[in-house]
Amino acid sequence: MNHLLTKSIRVRQSPFTSKVEEAGVKAFTVYNRMLLPAVFESLADDAAHLKRAVQIWDVAGERQVEIIGPDATRLIQMSTPRDLARMKDDQCYYIPVVDHEGGMLNDPVALRLAEDRYWVSLADSDLLLYYKGLALGFGLDVKVFEPDVSPLAIQGPKSDALIARAFGEEVTKLRFFRHMPLQFEGADMVIARSGWSLQGGFEIYMNGSEHGPALWDCLFEAGKDLDVRAGCPNGVERIEGGLLSYGSDMDQSHTPFEAGLGKYVHASTKDHCLGTAALLAQGAHKREIRPVAIEGAPLLAAPVTRWPLMNKAGEPVGSISSCAYSESFKTNVAIGMVARAYWDAGTALQVQTPDDLRDAKIEEKFWAR
Amino acid sequence: MNHLLTKSIRVRQSPFTSKVEEAGVKAFTVYNRMLLPAVFESLADDAAHLKRAVQIWDVAGERQVEIIGPDATRLIQMSTPRDLARMKDDQCYYIPVVDHEGGMLNDPVALRLAEDRYWVSLADSDLLLYYKGLALGFGLDVKVFEPDVSPLAIQGPKSDALIARAFGEEVTKLRFFRHMPLQFEGADMVIARSGWSLQGGFEIYMNGSEHGPALWDCLFEAGKDLDVRAGCPNGVERIEGGLLSYGSDMDQSHTPFEAGLGKYVHASTKDHCLGTAALLAQGAHKREIRPVAIEGAPLLAAPVTRWPLMNKAGEPVGSISSCAYSESFKTNVAIGMVARAYWDAGTALQVQTPDDLRDAKIEEKFWAR
Repeated sequence: MNHLLTKSIRVRQSPFTSKVEEAGVKAFTVYNRMLLPAVFESLADDAAHLKRAVQIWDVAGERQVEIIGPDATRLIQMSTPRDLARMKDDQCYYIPVVDHEGGMLNDPVALRLAEDRYWVSLADSDLLLYYKGLALGFGLDVKVFEPDVSPLAIQGPKSDALIARAFGEEVTKLRFFRHMPLQFEGADMVIARSGWSLQGGFEIYMNGSEHGPALWDCLFEAGKDLDVRAGCPNGVERIEGGLLSYGSDMDQSHTPFEAGLGKYVHASTKDHCLGTAALLAQGAHKREIRPVAIEGAPLLAAPVTRWPLMNKAGEPVGSISSCAYSESFKTNVAIGMVARAYWDAGTALQVQTPDDLRDAKIEEKFWAR
Repeated sequence: MNHLLTKSIRVRQSPFTSKVEEAGVKAFTVYNRMLLPAVFESLADDAAHLKRAVQIWDVAGERQVEIIGPDATRLIQMSTPRDLARMKDDQCYYIPVVDHEGGMLNDPVALRLAEDRYWVSLADSDLLLYYKGLALGFGLDVKVFEPDVSPLAIQGPKSDALIARAFGEEVTKLRFFRHMPLQFEGADMVIARSGWSLQGGFEIYMNGSEHGPALWDCLFEAGKDLDVRAGCPNGVERIEGGLLSYGSDMDQSHTPFEAGLGKYVHASTKDHCLGTAALLAQGAHKREIRPVAIEGAPLLAAPVTRWPLMNKAGEPVGSISSCAYSESFKTNVAIGMVARAYWDAGTALQVQTPDDLRDAKIEEKFWAR
């Protein structure tokens, strides 16, 4: 059963909540203390539509941390082992953020807006408080705050067509993980080619909550004959594509290596990122995220606690953190944290779901990759 | 309408979730990314029962930050303008936590367990990340982490009777906001006379999630003939008593003075707390939290955004952040942030609810105080 969620100011409405309610949202999750739509028709129908048309997603729950000032780059580099030295003013970087022991605190996308100005677009943790603490403690010359900026995503194969109509062909020349200015109702916004799906698309960093309903309507008007619908990050499509959910698939107890993000750990940051030295000193990591296919009938309930993974002798070798049935790949697709001795593709394992013991197999790669 | 909440690992179960589901919980909220029960029978029935009997509350969402090490006191004092100099090893302190500008980051209860060891029992924000950032930046000799500790509250006039049966008369000698060790199933736990109601009671800081079901059952067994029920922080009772909800009634944009917590701002901390100097320099604050009675028929839907407060000329003078109908006091009880010129008791105002414009009045004090 799903739970009922009571209303309060503390669990914030987004600037688009009234619109997603009008569009028939069936359930929410809570993300950075804000309502985030989770289902419209059904996970399967939402996934199928996302893959053939275009959807508008209220992802305002990806709250921004604005960091501005002469030490802005220094502060962000303290928090991530990814080397920011060559980052351009129109780039977005996916950055694992770690503490001094290498434990992951978030996996945001950082937008560099200027040499001394960034928006850090958060996964689900109050990273603003970490940046505030670091800035105060190291005496950095920066201002750290949450601006009134709410991302709205346009995702799906018809995203370019929709954006061209709404804002002109020029915008569709944006390369992946690049951003550019966008004017709407006289306000200075930012649009990036990005988003938490593998179907392509854009994210508009809407500047000013008051523009929410008009921006939503503008995109639906432009997409009328493109079968545009309200959607949201999809629990099936994101597993097929190996997009990780911070707080579910990894948390403070995992390093970027364990989260499969080792390519973002750059030794060049060892004197700048507070966690790099610890990460480099840890030696070979003993577990890592892997795609796992789970056999048998469709598993329709997502894990609410990690499902144990065992080898054929029944010994614990890891756990499953996300799982859904994929209509596209005709199997239960899952994300697991798996011990080194068992993480090779093809390894046969068993998983204890709440209902039964199932056969499972480590995949070579995520299905949609 | 209430919303449906989808399940995931990211929105965490508590060690008591299975028990509150068995007990018939009707709705949850999400607190520190954990399920927090919000209603069992109805707000009114839950409030009435709380005032006459005893309830067991799953408040595991009040996650703990453990701070241990020689600089533990120094770190916590950096974050709060309340002077900790005389805090004893068995005391709990309610501490407004502020940044360097005096903006409130949380309003936890800190438990001093030893000279160099604290649990900070959080309201709804990741204060752990702030403490981590400060500790790293200032180079403090502390460890900061979330222990596997989950508070379970016993609240209501029959709390002492229940606790005496479960753990002996000795425990009922605890004074308000003092704590003592408690053994359960061989584990070292802590019990405090505290809790987020005005009905009296205790909070058990359960050490080890595995003890959840047994501790729950033990308390229900002890309270069988005391009319013990599952309950939760009650949206009516807490407004009657003026208990503030961080994230609803105040947030980073408010100072402790504005939140009515000026008595916790001690000038003696100006060289130790990072925010005290700014708070003292700000001069007279221009708005403050006040109890507000709202006339007319019972208001049954809590605010999801702040309701505007106007003077008789229709000019904005503040906003309402929490509201409920009180059966005990036969009025709509509310918490408002009110401009200085209008905050005197007896001032007549108007409030714009989602449905209508109502007359409202500033009260002398919170109803149950």
